[in-house]
Amino acid sequence: MRLLLINPNTTASMTEKAAIAARAVAGVGTQIIAATSQMGPASIEGYYDGAIAVPGMLQELKERQVAGYDAAIICCFDDTGLDAARMFCDVPVVGLCEAAVTTAGFLAQRFSVVTTLERSRILIDNLVQRYGMGSRAKVRASDIPVLELEGASAGAIGKLRAEIERALAEDGAEAIVLGCAGMADLARELQAIYGVPVVDGVAAAVKQAEALVSLGLSTSKRSAYASPLPKPFSGALQHLAPVARSPSK
Amino acid sequence: MRLLLINPNTTASMTEKAAIAARAVAGVGTQIIAATSQMGPASIEGYYDGAIAVPGMLQELKERQVAGYDAAIICCFDDTGLDAARMFCDVPVVGLCEAAVTTAGFLAQRFSVVTTLERSRILIDNLVQRYGMGSRAKVRASDIPVLELEGASAGAIGKLRAEIERALAEDGAEAIVLGCAGMADLARELQAIYGVPVVDGVAAAVKQAEALVSLGLSTSKRSAYASPLPKPFSGALQHLAPVARSPSK
Amino acid sequence: MRLLLINPNTTASMTEKAAIAARAVAGVGTQIIAATSQMGPASIEGYYDGAIAVPGMLQELKERQVAGYDAAIICCFDDTGLDAARMFCDVPVVGLCEAAVTTAGFLAQRFSVVTTLERSRILIDNLVQRYGMGSRAKVRASDIPVLELEGASAGAIGKLRAEIERALAEDGAEAIVLGCAGMADLARELQAIYGVPVVDGVAAAVKQAEALVSLGLSTSKRSAYASPLPKPFSGALQHLAPVARSPSK
Amino acid sequence: MRLLLINPNTTASMTEKAAIAARAVAGVGTQIIAATSQMGPASIEGYYDGAIAVPGMLQELKERQVAGYDAAIICCFDDTGLDAARMFCDVPVVGLCEAAVTTAGFLAQRFSVVTTLERSRILIDNLVQRYGMGSRAKVRASDIPVLELEGASAGAIGKLRAEIERALAEDGAEAIVLGCAGMADLARELQAIYGVPVVDGVAAAVKQAEALVSLGLSTSKRSAYASPLPKPFSGALQHLAPVARSPSK
Amino acid sequence: MRLLLINPNTTASMTEKAAIAARAVAGVGTQIIAATSQMGPASIEGYYDGAIAVPGMLQELKERQVAGYDAAIICCFDDTGLDAARMFCDVPVVGLCEAAVTTAGFLAQRFSVVTTLERSRILIDNLVQRYGMGSRAKVRASDIPVLELEGASAGAIGKLRAEIERALAEDGAEAIVLGCAGMADLARELQAIYGVPVVDGVAAAVKQAEALVSLGLSTSKRSAYASPLPKPFSGALQHLAPVARSPSK
Amino acid sequence: MRLLLINPNTTASMTEKAAIAARAVAGVGTQIIAATSQMGPASIEGYYDGAIAVPGMLQELKERQVAGYDAAIICCFDDTGLDAARMFCDVPVVGLCEAAVTTAGFLAQRFSVVTTLERSRILIDNLVQRYGMGSRAKVRASDIPVLELEGASAGAIGKLRAEIERALAEDGAEAIVLGCAGMADLARELQAIYGVPVVDGVAAAVKQAEALVSLGLSTSKRSAYASPLPKPFSGALQHLAPVARSPSK
Repeated sequence: MRLLLINPNTTASMTEKAAIAARAVAGVGTQIIAATSQMGPASIEGYYDGAIAVPGMLQELKERQVAGYDAAIICCFDDTGLDAARMFCDVPVVGLCEAAVTTAGFLAQRFSVVTTLERSRILIDNLVQRYGMGSRAKVRASDIPVLELEGASAGAIGKLRAEIERALAEDGAEAIVLGCAGMADLARELQAIYGVPVVDGVAAAVKQAEALVSLGLSTSKRSAYASPLPKPFSGALQHLAPVARSPSK
Repeated sequence: MRLLLINPNTTASMTEKAAIAARAVAGVGTQIIAATSQMGPASIEGYYDGAIAVPGMLQELKERQVAGYDAAIICCFDDTGLDAARMFCDVPVVGLCEAAVTTAGFLAQRFSVVTTLERSRILIDNLVQRYGMGSRAKVRASDIPVLELEGASAGAIGKLRAEIERALAEDGAEAIVLGCAGMADLARELQAIYGVPVVDGVAAAVKQAEALVSLGLSTSKRSAYASPLPKPFSGALQHLAPVARSPSK
Repeated sequence: MRLLLINPNTTASMTEKAAIAARAVAGVGTQIIAATSQMGPASIEGYYDGAIAVPGMLQELKERQVAGYDAAIICCFDDTGLDAARMFCDVPVVGLCEAAVTTAGFLAQRFSVVTTLERSRILIDNLVQRYGMGSRAKVRASDIPVLELEGASAGAIGKLRAEIERALAEDGAEAIVLGCAGMADLARELQAIYGVPVVDGVAAAVKQAEALVSLGLSTSKRSAYASPLPKPFSGALQHLAPVARSPSK
Repeated sequence: MRLLLINPNTTASMTEKAAIAARAVAGVGTQIIAATSQMGPASIEGYYDGAIAVPGMLQELKERQVAGYDAAIICCFDDTGLDAARMFCDVPVVGLCEAAVTTAGFLAQRFSVVTTLERSRILIDNLVQRYGMGSRAKVRASDIPVLELEGASAGAIGKLRAEIERALAEDGAEAIVLGCAGMADLARELQAIYGVPVVDGVAAAVKQAEALVSLGLSTSKRSAYASPLPKPFSGALQHLAPVARSPSK
Repeated sequence: MRLLLINPNTTASMTEKAAIAARAVAGVGTQIIAATSQMGPASIEGYYDGAIAVPGMLQELKERQVAGYDAAIICCFDDTGLDAARMFCDVPVVGLCEAAVTTAGFLAQRFSVVTTLERSRILIDNLVQRYGMGSRAKVRASDIPVLELEGASAGAIGKLRAEIERALAEDGAEAIVLGCAGMADLARELQAIYGVPVVDGVAAAVKQAEALVSLGLSTSKRSAYASPLPKPFSGALQHLAPVARSPSK
Repeated sequence: MRLLLINPNTTASMTEKAAIAARAVAGVGTQIIAATSQMGPASIEGYYDGAIAVPGMLQELKERQVAGYDAAIICCFDDTGLDAARMFCDVPVVGLCEAAVTTAGFLAQRFSVVTTLERSRILIDNLVQRYGMGSRAKVRASDIPVLELEGASAGAIGKLRAEIERALAEDGAEAIVLGCAGMADLARELQAIYGVPVVDGVAAAVKQAEALVSLGLSTSKRSAYASPLPKPFSGALQHLAPVARSPSK
């Protein structure tokens, strides 16, 4: 099984860290193909960065079709471009936030998501509501810029731990979800420290993608995720125009 | 007051039709500046088209800053890239769906939105839920491809009318919202035929944009819509990288 | 365009203050006709005052029909009698709370409403839920009696500012809605102080009423807002009995 | 125990029918004091009638205080003026819709409310949502004018039965709530016919009022239902001005 | 009227205390038959205890059918086995949480439930959401083991009072619901101390059961609460196998 | 990895069919240990059967601890006793409904669950709401008794297919979830026929259990799922009394 792990930002070191986390949990026979977007922002902090990142992410999805993959994981906790990717692909596509909060739902009735910047907090809160966890999960920001996580600085980890402690004390959280792909390397250690489940989205997404492929399930092509209709695209992104294929509704 | 009406698809005839609808309701002293995206799909039918359309729309928002505008309207009923545009701009940005369902809320307790293709129906239903109208509004598809509306063919209008009639009969709808910018020219006539309010998003958005400008209100730059942080962007979209500015949280 | 601004309480000075706020934002060609209810309480603080105020408000709506108006604004943040007024009138009717929270929704994803007394807080919270903003807005009371706002005392303003500061600090509010018509004169100044959008309901309602009139839209007469059926009314309020008219469902 | 059963419309025959239904279920020692409003509409069909009816209903609540009552029931399925009455009274006040849907909740997981006119359907649906039954109950209109129920005509009963049958067939209803005080005499018979619980609001409200009085519970005077503040009232309703009393928040 | 009050835990002293509370509010002619489960845990603290308690509770419901009862009350605030009991019985069955929060809804718009252990808090919060009070009620734990309430120790009462005071100060609660059958003896005193309604589930359930019996209403046997189908049961619980009866859907 | 697949009903042939479905999707190195409850009903149709089934299911969980297992799956679509099992176990526990609707959420925005009897439909609808899918999924009954599925009769399959076809035509379903463990063998074939994803709960639960074990995650022992407190249990179920262990909150 080949899983395409696409980092929708252009920072290769972040891709690499996520790939390590992905490979650490991948099943026997699962190959993780890590890809870094070639077009767009160096990190995704809020809606603007996310919107610019999507075409580059879709371009990777397209170019990697030659070598083939059985499922794709969008490696950003904002689930950047997830719906568009599901229309584009015939194979399953999994987002980190969706995978992580779904996984947490099997472990706890109430939990908290701890993300990076305040500007991402409401975006993620909206996702959590969309995934049906609005009455079960609270989202918190720890005030860490995404790229600061790359250095794993003591300052960044201290802010993250302080916010987790507030979640446990004030929210009655029974589990913690780490709300950024850049925190993937910290989950096990934080779980040991706090004695509650700590869910990392990268690892959770790998297992969900493996599950869907194993079950022979893929995105429904009926209605919302029907394949893009062929039509002219203009300008620098015209190579992303859908090509004609067998009709779908 | 200068309102920038951006069509995020690249079909200029559709921009023109929307501009006519916008100018028909614009207040004294309001200038409608119509702009057509130069990059992306010829029509927006579902998430994929929408995602590819956003950078072209943001590029227009950026390039038009030289001449200046007091507010922007994103001229697609999917509210394509609305959150990203709100981060980018210092002036208000209004989406058609948001403006239309908000306007309908002043007129009726329950209403139906009639859009084009089935693939857009759930996307719009999700928007309607996000705008807090989930228990008041039902979304229906009339099975009309977007560009078919350009010709105002009898077939397209017949499908639209049939779906409106079903909404009145089966949903108990008290008002109708036209769920595509390409239907802007039909609202008045349909309202006369059916004797219930028929809301067009283009016209509704013009009035909401005028309202915000008149009131001296603009998008909050605190939290979700804080200005994009300066950082490197790569590839064909690098010209859309945010530049440094006075700090915002 | 003639907009009838009805103060449903009987305090003319409050009407006057609201009329000033309304005229300050009214468009070219919009005439604000300010009316003060002649029957009912001097201020509206909670459900009881509101219920007694409605007939006087409806009486104004009726008497002013002779001179004519194109839309009506009910000038109390509790949206006193809004549904009854919509049944009565053939022209659009706008409430302050509805207009204000709707307007805030274009500016921010999360916001707080700051009202006067604790007894009005839950009433307004119920309105906010009805308008679909329950997961986006928090309502707070500042413990200021309504008529104390008339003097614009330092004490009242101090309490209001303290509550706004709590909303910003504790709720993560991105914008503030002033939850009483008597605060209409403070919005601009508070916006300048706090650097977030501050929405006043009077001004917001004027623009929504202008929008509806410009768009040729009025309240649906199908179902919930059908014109009152003619029938006998008894006692002191019998002059408010509906008269026969062309049938509506 | 003395229960004041107030009919907020002015049709005494309807009061009498409700009083019979109330007395049929009243406990040993419970006295039903039936009162008919002296001011307002002959029937309540939609928001306008309801708004005009409230002062007359409150006036009855006030005048009957001399003789005394232990709880009050507002005898209209729209729960007309319920919040205002709760502020005014120191004794419990119960509404028919609230009592009926609450009672149905003990009997069935999903149920349907069958009311009179379409114009009341959405009003009641909003109440049902407010009482937390939005995901459990569906509201239907049977197209019967309220006063037509007084004659218990075969036509009215036929329409009602047809709508109940639709509710059972299409909604999967497990129980039926009769959504008008004027249907109080039909509940037992309909229950026998259809073999599912049929709840009448008048009877349900009597038992809820008895329950609250027996339990020594009355409306909280903290926050939303605090006693009205003393202040000047003007015009024909000035006799309803609250008088000074021991302070409440 | 004979009401069966079943304590689903095996602690007879707790049954006795609840029976005293029940008899204190029972109407003239109502006989309270107190029963203690003979099988299962000594107290119910969380889901596991509750699950094991259900068969013993159902066994009592079955054995007591010989002597007969007109309605049953499940005397635990977790509404232990309520749905199963409703399927089993042809007479109404009432749960404490359902009765208490429903009763509180007639008294206050917002209220807080104060229960014992943290492990019961979320369980009860889920019930509160199911009963439609999720946006009106907050649930709090006071950290008192259930059986500690039996001694009515000063420590237990002190913890309970402290939590009530936090609910009043922090939640803006207008009323308090006591979230454990073992607190039934404290309601009147706490109501006197705090001046807000304090609702005990045992007393509330007695009145709801009396109401349903008086009204001639019982659980719908259509759909969710249809009588159990006859089928083989194995092992120690085989005596609880349903017997054949007239068919229900 | 050893996964305990517990059938909470006592029909061994149903266990065997589920075990086949489980083994068909189990990963390399995953051992499926199938267990059939020894106490309780032969099939679970509604709340009563489910309640009686739980102790037998918990007994299996306890007895199988000697041989050991890494996670448990409760093999009934009602998620029978899931919360109790999570308190009891230190390893993850997965329910079929939770796993299936969660899995469907990765594949489609809207989907329908097709279960057996009407009496199970609302039970499952409540689960779907609890899992946050209430606005995305509709539940339907196909009127097939559970044990009739064992024979895979043409009649049963015909009813199931007819209901799936209604879901596709009337609900706009993009995917189908099979709402009974006894349908596990039909998923692949139905997916081939209808061309939309068809999710079986048994297979979905195996992959979720594998995922949790691989990720080193288990049920939070904080709050709702804390280990049962040691206390006396009486009667035939006393062997299920929790034993003292290291304290948990």
